[in-house]
Amino acid sequence: MELIGIVAGFCTTASFVPQVVHTWRTKSVADISLRMYLMLCLGVALWIVYGILIGSLSVLLANLATFVLAASVLGMKLRYGRLSRKRDKRGP
Amino acid sequence: MELIGIVAGFCTTASFVPQVVHTWRTKSVADISLRMYLMLCLGVALWIVYGILIGSLSVLLANLATFVLAASVLGMKLRYGRLSRKRDKRGP
Repeated sequence: MELIGIVAGFCTTASFVPQVVHTWRTKSVADISLRMYLMLCLGVALWIVYGILIGSLSVLLANLATFVLAASVLGMKLRYGRLSRKRDKRGP
Repeated sequence: MELIGIVAGFCTTASFVPQVVHTWRTKSVADISLRMYLMLCLGVALWIVYGILIGSLSVLLANLATFVLAASVLGMKLRYGRLSRKRDKRGP
């Protein structure tokens, strides 16, 4: 039974890896919701606090990994989102 | 302490709402990773099974809500991704 929880945690955490790679390659972020990743990072940070408070290493580690991945998508969204707005202003 | 877990769960689940709205409005999905949402839906489905097995209503309900939201982004990615590829083939 615990195996299902571990595989579930692995899938939900690892699922952000393809998005990080996709965004890193394309540098294109218009379709990604900034609010989603702001809320997600906040929620995952709270899960990390919760994992510490209840002394659960799996909650802590899974959410630390998710935080690193989600925060990197958020960082690229902020960075490449700003670059593309500058390019639009300059025009062709 | 449980309040932190509840707020964390709410944030991580609700974080998908802005992405669903953003994608519904723009119908543009090129920047969204298909593999992310495939893995995420699989992982969340496993969390639902796990929630049933351990008899945890909060794990079950939070992940049911996340599944509905993530699956709708996945559905739009599949649908609008195909439409934009058809448009590209037809050319200007």
